[in-house]
This record gives sequence, C-alpha cells and structure tokens, in this order.
Amino acid sequence: MTLSINPLTQKSLKIPEKLDDSIRIQEFLFKNKGKKIVVVQGLGFVGAVMSLVCANALTEEYAVIGIDLANKDTYWKIESINDGIFPLIADDPKIADFFDNAKVKGNLLATYDPIAYQYADVIIVDINLDVQKESYEKGGLKDFDVNLNSFKAAIKTIGSFCRDDVLVLVETTVPPGTCDKVVKPIIEEELEKRELTIKKYRLGHSYERVMPGPQYIDSIREFPRVYAGVNEISADAVKDFLESIIDISKCDLTRLEHTNATEMAKVLENSYRAMNIAFAVEWSRFAEEAGVDLYAMVNAIRARPTHANLMYPGIGVGGYCLTKDPLLASWARKSHFGSSSGLEMSINGVSVNDQMPKFAFDRLVQVFGDINKKKVTFLGVSYRGDVGDTRFTPVEPLVEMVREAGAEIVLHDPFISYWEEQKCNVESDLNTVLDLTCDLIIISAGHSRYKQESTIEKLMALSPTLIYDTIGLLSKEQLTILLSKHKVSVLGRGDLK
Amino acid sequence: MTLSINPLTQKSLKIPEKLDDSIRIQEFLFKNKGKKIVVVQGLGFVGAVMSLVCANALTEEYAVIGIDLANKDTYWKIESINDGIFPLIADDPKIADFFDNAKVKGNLLATYDPIAYQYADVIIVDINLDVQKESYEKGGLKDFDVNLNSFKAAIKTIGSFCRDDVLVLVETTVPPGTCDKVVKPIIEEELEKRELTIKKYRLGHSYERVMPGPQYIDSIREFPRVYAGVNEISADAVKDFLESIIDISKCDLTRLEHTNATEMAKVLENSYRAMNIAFAVEWSRFAEEAGVDLYAMVNAIRARPTHANLMYPGIGVGGYCLTKDPLLASWARKSHFGSSSGLEMSINGVSVNDQMPKFAFDRLVQVFGDINKKKVTFLGVSYRGDVGDTRFTPVEPLVEMVREAGAEIVLHDPFISYWEEQKCNVESDLNTVLDLTCDLIIISAGHSRYKQESTIEKLMALSPTLIYDTIGLLSKEQLTILLSKHKVSVLGRGDLK
Repeated sequence: MTLSINPLTQKSLKIPEKLDDSIRIQEFLFKNKGKKIVVVQGLGFVGAVMSLVCANALTEEYAVIGIDLANKDTYWKIESINDGIFPLIADDPKIADFFDNAKVKGNLLATYDPIAYQYADVIIVDINLDVQKESYEKGGLKDFDVNLNSFKAAIKTIGSFCRDDVLVLVETTVPPGTCDKVVKPIIEEELEKRELTIKKYRLGHSYERVMPGPQYIDSIREFPRVYAGVNEISADAVKDFLESIIDISKCDLTRLEHTNATEMAKVLENSYRAMNIAFAVEWSRFAEEAGVDLYAMVNAIRARPTHANLMYPGIGVGGYCLTKDPLLASWARKSHFGSSSGLEMSINGVSVNDQMPKFAFDRLVQVFGDINKKKVTFLGVSYRGDVGDTRFTPVEPLVEMVREAGAEIVLHDPFISYWEEQKCNVESDLNTVLDLTCDLIIISAGHSRYKQESTIEKLMALSPTLIYDTIGLLSKEQLTILLSKHKVSVLGRGDLK
Repeated sequence: MTLSINPLTQKSLKIPEKLDDSIRIQEFLFKNKGKKIVVVQGLGFVGAVMSLVCANALTEEYAVIGIDLANKDTYWKIESINDGIFPLIADDPKIADFFDNAKVKGNLLATYDPIAYQYADVIIVDINLDVQKESYEKGGLKDFDVNLNSFKAAIKTIGSFCRDDVLVLVETTVPPGTCDKVVKPIIEEELEKRELTIKKYRLGHSYERVMPGPQYIDSIREFPRVYAGVNEISADAVKDFLESIIDISKCDLTRLEHTNATEMAKVLENSYRAMNIAFAVEWSRFAEEAGVDLYAMVNAIRARPTHANLMYPGIGVGGYCLTKDPLLASWARKSHFGSSSGLEMSINGVSVNDQMPKFAFDRLVQVFGDINKKKVTFLGVSYRGDVGDTRFTPVEPLVEMVREAGAEIVLHDPFISYWEEQKCNVESDLNTVLDLTCDLIIISAGHSRYKQESTIEKLMALSPTLIYDTIGLLSKEQLTILLSKHKVSVLGRGDLK
C-alpha cells in the first residue's frame, strides 16, 4: 500500500489500487449538465491554476476536471482539491477567490481516472517535460538529453480516450516540432485504433507565461498570449477557446502560422532571458576585479529603452523554465529538424548560469576566507523574491558548497517552511533566526522583508558579523550603515569602503 | 607634396609643410575674447558634431576649436569647416542650423596646430581607438589586439601643451581603466616635464551615445549621459561642463564612482547590444530549417516589456562601436586588471556577428543557386536604415562574396554616392538602377525608400526576378504581391509560399 502525504495538512492518503473514479466523475457531470467540459492534464504550478482560470472563465461556464497521476507525489493534490484545499500556497488572493467560486458553483473536480478524457470538449496539456542534465562539478553543463517517453505516454492516454471532435491544446513547453511530429501522429494513431475519424479533432499550442507570485492568476488571464494550430481550423478553435478564458480587453492574442512557430517562440523567449542573465556573470567578475559597482552601471545603462532589461548580477537562475528551455530548443533543432547544429549560444547561457552559485561561493571564500566550522545563516532559499518556489533554486548548490566547506547552516525563508528538494525544514521567523549567534549572513533571495528597516536594525544589533549580499538587495545607504560595524561584501561589485 | 581631397567639393588641398597655424588661432582668440575655450580633439563622426554642440552651448558662450591631424584623410575636414562647409552629410537639419549659427557668431575654428591646446579651458578627446581584428575566412574572429600607441601619442600632445588647470574630458570609447592607468600618468608626466603642478588639472570620462542620422544633434544634447572623474573634484568639473551643453531638462546626467566605471559601462552597454544581435543568428537558421517566420515570432515576443529589445534577424552588424567595444572590454580585463580571463560571451557575440554576412550568402546560394555571371543589384550599402554610414557595414563582405561568386554587381544607396571603403561609386537614383536588367535583387539596408509603394510597383514591373530580403524590410502584404511574380526569400524565415 502506497501513501501520498498532503504537505499542507500532513494527512496521509492511501492511493487506491483500482483506478476507477467513474462514480465521482458521473456525479460531477450530472451536476454540471449542459456545460462544456474542459479537462486539464497535470495539476502542477501551471495546470492547477489553469484549472481555476477555466472554472472561472469569462464568457462561458465550463465544467472543469483536473487530472493527474495517482502516485506518491501527486495523488494528494487530487484529493486536496476535492476536499476544498487548494494544493498550492500562493501570495495571490485571487487564487483563493477563484477556488471558492468554483466550490460554490461545483464546477471543478480533480481525478486520476483517464476516463474523464472521453467527456472533454477541450483537453489542455499542462504536464512537465524535463531535460536530463549532466553537470560538471563546478556546475557547468557537460551534457544533456531530452526523453519524450513520459510525455508521449500522457498524449497516448488522451488519444486512447478522447472524443474524435476534441480540441487538444498543448500548453507544455515542448521541443519545437513536437505538436506536429509527436502529438499529432499519436492522437491520430489512437483514434484510428478505435476506428474513429481523424478529420474532426483539432490540435493547437499556446504557451503560458504564468508567473507564480502575487499576480499568479493575472499572469495567465491578462497577459499577452501566442497561439497556433496544426491547421487553420485548429487555430480557429484555439482562438475561440482562449477568448473565453483570457481577458482580451487587457491583452493581445497573437496567432502564429503554425505550432512549430509557437513552440519555438516559447523557448526562444526563455533562451533570450537566460542568455541575458548569463551575460551579467562575466561582467560581475570584471567589476569585482576593477573595484567598481556593477549595480550602479546597470542602473545607468537601463536608462536607455533599448537596454532596459539588462540584468543585475546574482547568485544564479532558478525555476522550471530558464534552466532547461534553451536545451529543449537545441535538442529539437537536431532531433526534429535534422540540423547538424544545436543552439550553442543558448546552451552556453544555461551552462554559465549553472555556474553562478559556484562563482558566488568562490567570491565568498575570496572575501571572507575559510568558513570551516563557521555558523552561516542563509536569508532566503527561493529562487525569486517574494515568492515561495524552490524548484531548481540556485540557493541549493550554494548551500551544499557552504555545507561541504564545513560550515553549520541555518536557513530562513518567510515563504517556505519545508524545503521539498532538500527534505529539510526552513525557519520562517526572521527574529528567531537573527537571535542565533552566527558568523556569516548570506542574503540569498530577494524577499523585500530583508531590506526593511527593522531587519537592518536587527542586523546592526548583532555582534560584528560578515554579511554577504549575493543579489544586491541592500541599498547603498543600508550597506553604509552595516559597514560601520560589519564586514560587508556584495556580489558583482568591488570591495566596499 | 601631399594632397588631401575634400570629397564634398572635390577640391584638392595642399597639406602645409610647416604646421604653424598660430596666426589664424590668434585672430580667432582675439575675436572671441572673454569666452571660455573648448578644444575638441578629433573631427570624426563624434568630434565634428560635438564641436557644433559646444559652439551652441546652452548656458555658456564658448569659443570652440576643433583639432585634427594634417594628413590626407583629415586635413580637408579642417579646411572645410573653416571654408564654411560642414564635413559630414547628415539627415539632421539641426546640423546645418548649428553650423550656420557658429559661422554667424564666429566661435568655431578648425586647426591642425596643437598649440591650440595651450589656450583650452576644456579639452574633449574624441579620437578613435581601434581594435586590430584577425578574422577567419568565414568571418569569425580568430584573434584581436588593442594597440594604444596612437591614442597615447594624442594624449601626450595634450599633456605637452595644456594649461595646468585644464579639464580633460575623454569621450573616446577606451578599454576600462584607460583614464586612470594611461591618460592620467601621461598628462602628469608631461606637466611635470614642464615644471607645472599636477594638483590642479582635472580628468574625467563621459561617453557619447551619439547616433548618426536624423537625431544626430539630439543624440548628444538630449540623451541620458553617464560621467565620472578620476577624483571628486574632476567629477564636479565634468558635471559643470556637461550641464552647460546638455539639456538636463530632457535627460539625466548620472555620476558613477570612477572613470573605471564609466569606461566599463560604455563597453558593457555595447557588448550587450552586440550579444543580443548575435543571439538572433542561430535562431534565424533554426527558423529557416523549421520553415517558420522568425520575424513574426520576434514581434509576438516583443509584446513583453522584458523582451522588447529582442532583435530581428539580419545581415550583420556595422558601425564603429558594436564591432569592437566588446573586444576592448575583454582586452582591458586582462591587460589593465590582470585577470586571467577575458569576456568570452562578449567576444563570442562579436565573432558570431562577424559571420552574419557569410550566413546571408550561404542562404542566398541555398535558395537561389549558382549566381555565377548573374546580374545582382544591392539595394543599400549603409549598415543602418535611413543613414548614410558605411563604416564596417556588413554589406561589404556580402558584396565581396557575391562578386567572388562571379556575379556582376550594381550598388544603390540613396544616402551614399561614393563608397569610401570600397573606393567605388554608388548609384543614388533608384529608378535608374531598377531600369537595368538584373537577375537578383538583394535588399541589404533598411532604407524606408525601399518599402514605399512606388518601389514595390517598380519591382512588379520587372521581368521575373529573384528578390532576397536580408533584413526583413518588406511587409507580409508586400511579400505576397511580389511572390505572385518573383521568387522571393527572406533571411530568417522558411520558404515563402
């Protein structure tokens, strides 16, 4: 018997052995008779929230079924939704509002039973597609591979249950060419196996620009969006559906010529961002060597509209997209389009970003010396300010390097109480953490809490301590205050005087 | 006897053997008695226009002396200014206005005699500092070097004549560290040789973001600007001077901590731009292979404010800055700050950009086949739309490759009648060019003239011809019209149907 534990309630759930959820599905359909049915495949950071957006559509009343696998990591999400507890903690108050609305209307169900697909008018694919990365010890990218097997299996499940007039809308970030060369043949094969026509289904791609955080819902519902179909009729169907859930008075829908183009646009978009971040790495080192402040330079340069997105120095790149999307693109260029070349600049961007925690560590040792047996406090483990998200956070390798160097570690993050990937607790109360004696404080995430005046006062009350701002969170004035008592260093700038 | 030919008037000028211009200088000073004296070193694309801006300062009436060498390439500029003909052709009507004003006021002189420096309150350094690039045959960067000798010689001349309370403002893009490690010691050595104090002179750096074209003057006078001094008193002096010529009601002046920082900011700014251009290269190839339109993708992605500066595909990078500034930076990191590393990403950006004409040529051959003995017309030789500037234009290597492939070439550019670097004439009348029979038309510069309706009509009147848009100038509608008669290809997108 396998258990799945809901981290929000600590409830242990038995995973059913027989994956038959048909009674619950039938009841749900009966209650929602007459409504169009949207099935969302995947209840992760995108799918769970997309389900809410569909259940709160603007111009249509949908019955929405979220579907995920009944395994240790995901089964609890299914039951959590059905028990009235949304499976993600988010800063966005709209999440709770939308979930409450759906509960009142009774138009949101979660299930593990793929039979749900057979009722769907629209199926939205929001599952993960991972890259297998092999890294050098320093963090650079040695090699990588893309394995489509689990993605293909998920599409095959859809194809083996779906109606022959369904609209399948892929939102997953996929290697360009995937809808046309992978999804389409699988769905057609499965339809043909069931002796159904392959002339009526529609297939499109539209990517999310969703951003966990205080604008979670709006980053889906009010953000410009790009879409395409494998043919005109599919593109039209995608457009009609998107217009029912997206507020097109606030953002544009842009149609591209083919799913190849939308798939490419997504990974291009993220590759650009990743490379722009990587660009700051070499210049951080250069600024440190030349004894100048890269932050001040970046601010001066950002005054130019053509340079407004120049990135600040930092500890590295986290999250699910920027760390892998350039690799999906490069892989696709070779595997789906037969090119002899990958996308070297984009791959290099990922590789450089993956080395950033190592650079941050090297600078630490260079400035503060040996940290063996030292007490080190990390302020922030999330990869992004004011968000509680630890997926691929660059704080993780930095924590590991500091630990391996023999330091004792304390972790703090106001948004995270349990660090999934590291399987450890994280202190949420800042005062408790700062009351402990420590030798070095590393500011490792850009939570606004850390630059509040009360935090600076608290830091000034500490006995002389080393302070390492890896993300340039503190202002010049704050650094000057701290410098009067502590040794302070900022990644990406020369020694502070 | 050496001659210097004024290309604007075709006048041949004898270069004086004795470089004594003191009488003319004395007369000028007498006429401008009581005015502060600004000497601008270098009468190129920046210095010539900077002289106009200083002669038309906002809060001070300066007497301005532009100074350059009396050699074949520059002597004519000196005499042209003194003869009342501004030595640059520019679209900006303010150039003529400012020059006329200066003529009326009599506060602008040009000379070759370095004695002028001894009268200067302010000396502005606007000379070139070149990089010696060694390229692979394909256009990638094999090696490069920076030779500071002529820059040092120019600074030495200033130091051997200038007053001991002069303000020297370097505007030249220099390897970071140059003002502090090169200019400062030279000036101090020269002052000490003359037994003058080294305590009173001031030295600063502030870089231009000047852009030849219709906003030439405003790109100096109304554009945000960064400055610094080698010490506080120097920075204050630079600020006071800049505030007299820059319209600070329209743009910010930002002070950085040191000249090392402003020098680095400049090359960082241009390295970022160069890398962002290079980024489009690989994706152009990918889009062509996948049969989709990179322009449409870029437009869709640019809707995001964080991605608004994503670049379009293109034929390459030209101009004086982006082709070398990243190399200056990398060189400085090693040579001025003793780092074992250069700036690999930035160097790679230059190298990729240098290969763009080769990619454009390869695509040409791939799409249109052998061009031996074909008649090929280039529309545009400038590196930038609606500007007549051929410095390092990527059209040059493309023209050479097309010529080497055996084609007969006709060149057109509405802004250029004589191509300095290629030593050849360029046709200025579009109708004349399009009346010639030709096999292939290459749109190679983004002049708005080429997308006017009348041009499209003219193209449609040609017998079936190949048309190759290397810069995505033509709209979708225009491409569709042309496609009905001609074979058309656009760099950075799949085959047009």
